[in-house]
Amino acid sequence: MGKIEEFQRERDRLNALVLSRANLEIKRFFSLDSQVYRGGSIPVKYKELLGLVASLVLRCDDCVTYHIIRCHREGISREEFNEAMAIALVVGGSITIPHLRRAYDAWEELQRTSP
Amino acid sequence: MGKIEEFQRERDRLNALVLSRANLEIKRFFSLDSQVYRGGSIPVKYKELLGLVASLVLRCDDCVTYHIIRCHREGISREEFNEAMAIALVVGGSITIPHLRRAYDAWEELQRTSP
Amino acid sequence: MGKIEEFQRERDRLNALVLSRANLEIKRFFSLDSQVYRGGSIPVKYKELLGLVASLVLRCDDCVTYHIIRCHREGISREEFNEAMAIALVVGGSITIPHLRRAYDAWEELQRTSP
Amino acid sequence: MGKIEEFQRERDRLNALVLSRANLEIKRFFSLDSQVYRGGSIPVKYKELLGLVASLVLRCDDCVTYHIIRCHREGISREEFNEAMAIALVVGGSITIPHLRRAYDAWEELQRTSP
Amino acid sequence: MGKIEEFQRERDRLNALVLSRANLEIKRFFSLDSQVYRGGSIPVKYKELLGLVASLVLRCDDCVTYHIIRCHREGISREEFNEAMAIALVVGGSITIPHLRRAYDAWEELQRTSP
Amino acid sequence: MGKIEEFQRERDRLNALVLSRANLEIKRFFSLDSQVYRGGSIPVKYKELLGLVASLVLRCDDCVTYHIIRCHREGISREEFNEAMAIALVVGGSITIPHLRRAYDAWEELQRTSP
Repeated sequence: MGKIEEFQRERDRLNALVLSRANLEIKRFFSLDSQVYRGGSIPVKYKELLGLVASLVLRCDDCVTYHIIRCHREGISREEFNEAMAIALVVGGSITIPHLRRAYDAWEELQRTSP
Repeated sequence: MGKIEEFQRERDRLNALVLSRANLEIKRFFSLDSQVYRGGSIPVKYKELLGLVASLVLRCDDCVTYHIIRCHREGISREEFNEAMAIALVVGGSITIPHLRRAYDAWEELQRTSP
Repeated sequence: MGKIEEFQRERDRLNALVLSRANLEIKRFFSLDSQVYRGGSIPVKYKELLGLVASLVLRCDDCVTYHIIRCHREGISREEFNEAMAIALVVGGSITIPHLRRAYDAWEELQRTSP
Repeated sequence: MGKIEEFQRERDRLNALVLSRANLEIKRFFSLDSQVYRGGSIPVKYKELLGLVASLVLRCDDCVTYHIIRCHREGISREEFNEAMAIALVVGGSITIPHLRRAYDAWEELQRTSP
Repeated sequence: MGKIEEFQRERDRLNALVLSRANLEIKRFFSLDSQVYRGGSIPVKYKELLGLVASLVLRCDDCVTYHIIRCHREGISREEFNEAMAIALVVGGSITIPHLRRAYDAWEELQRTSP
Repeated sequence: MGKIEEFQRERDRLNALVLSRANLEIKRFFSLDSQVYRGGSIPVKYKELLGLVASLVLRCDDCVTYHIIRCHREGISREEFNEAMAIALVVGGSITIPHLRRAYDAWEELQRTSP
């Protein structure tokens, strides 16, 4: 099982746990978190890039992996991925580099396993 | 050995290492870090919730786990836990969700192992 | 006009602007932001302290001022205020001190103007 | 003189100061900071939205104002602005709200002064 | 009155307020905050540069101004200042640039008023 | 294989991956990231301490480990290490403690394996 699949299984397991235990406000937040990435005036693909860059500058590996999977599904090209990563790196600085490295690792795994 | 126990062992091992090597200022900081959670006008239980919410919005898994263990010892209910988590989630945003997930996982382990 | 009153007027003006322009998701977020501070298993007073400590460790002056006003209305004592500030300071470090200073300034203004 | 114009004058004054005093590495960084927003596989307009969302979740008023000016020049619509703000708000949480309020204020000023 | 002098007066006023109102733990933290910058194996001058770079990457204007004043008193040269700023800029990214600009402004004021 | 060696291997593997895939701007950033730590008016040893303290207050384990390895190579003494850690701890607060613990663990491994 690759790292991406392992990530998704653990994420699904814990999401199910949270939603079975959480109160109404937490559930509403999770719902809102889905709504904002739906297509509107900004196409889904660019919304996912917004989520990806926000996740990298805030340095959250799980959030980065999640948005990379979604970007991949939206058919984002390597050039687009590189350009978004370059913006995130310049905005967030060298402190984001360990997360950037893992982002490229996840991106490569997706190219290999579901090109 | 569960995740909570593993966390505590590693934390104890490294605390012992730091305190055997550190200088006076670092030891004073560690001492101050204990003092501020002692009962006063704010009861211990709410001080632990303050520590928990601060740890979640700052997105530190180890700090979250530590304060969940302490909250559990103080007899915090699931409703109180949920309400504190909801505040932290709204203040800190979706970037805290991976840590929130692991917080619920730790909380569940504590309910199972020392209900 | 004191700093607190000035803060509240500008906050009201801009909240009205945002809510007249924003989309549904942003309005839902603002609504959720009110809901999580309502009384439940954790009394309102302690929820406001949670909001205050979270705001200080995240170093947001406006959020700190807002929660100090609410804490003051909930009748929080100087001792409780000090204990919450001490936790925030130890968690967040000396980088929070400029915000802590302004928090004490706001607290004093509230004591003078509406004791 | 409006807030936007005041912001731009002070920014220009200080940029000139930094570039007259800084060393080669700092100048290279400033150059790189321009390069990453140039059009490529991702159109300029979306790169500016990436910069805007990154700036809001990192809570930097000056960076937010700068990218709002650039987004306005790229002809971004109110709907696109709202959708990007909604993503930033959900990712970054209520701690971003004071900056979101000032972002809407800057956006309104731009609509009034250069519609 | 220049910006530096204004900063120092307000800082002194608020420090006096905090120390007259705060509890023992807060006073101990303020004391510890002085102790760690005293000369030891690392000379004072480099400790001030550590404080300056930490303040810039954490993006706190007041902390940056404070450490620039102290660096200036320790006789730090423009080259040393530039090299420390370059490290902070690369580590912290473009999001630090507004603070870097104000840092250069404060540095220039100190050169003019007490060369 | 110790943790330090494992860290270095994974870091080398991922750096090679990033540099084989990234665009020009990302490569320029990586180059700039090396340049700022070269000796100048501030000796290399103190530049590494600046990188270490910046990494700890920003709470990045990989960055901390990297700069500890470099500090060790520059012959930094335990006293200097302790003094830098104390500054980082006071600036960044107790939220840095889990990273501080792992920093001492890495430091000890380096003393054992290459004293």
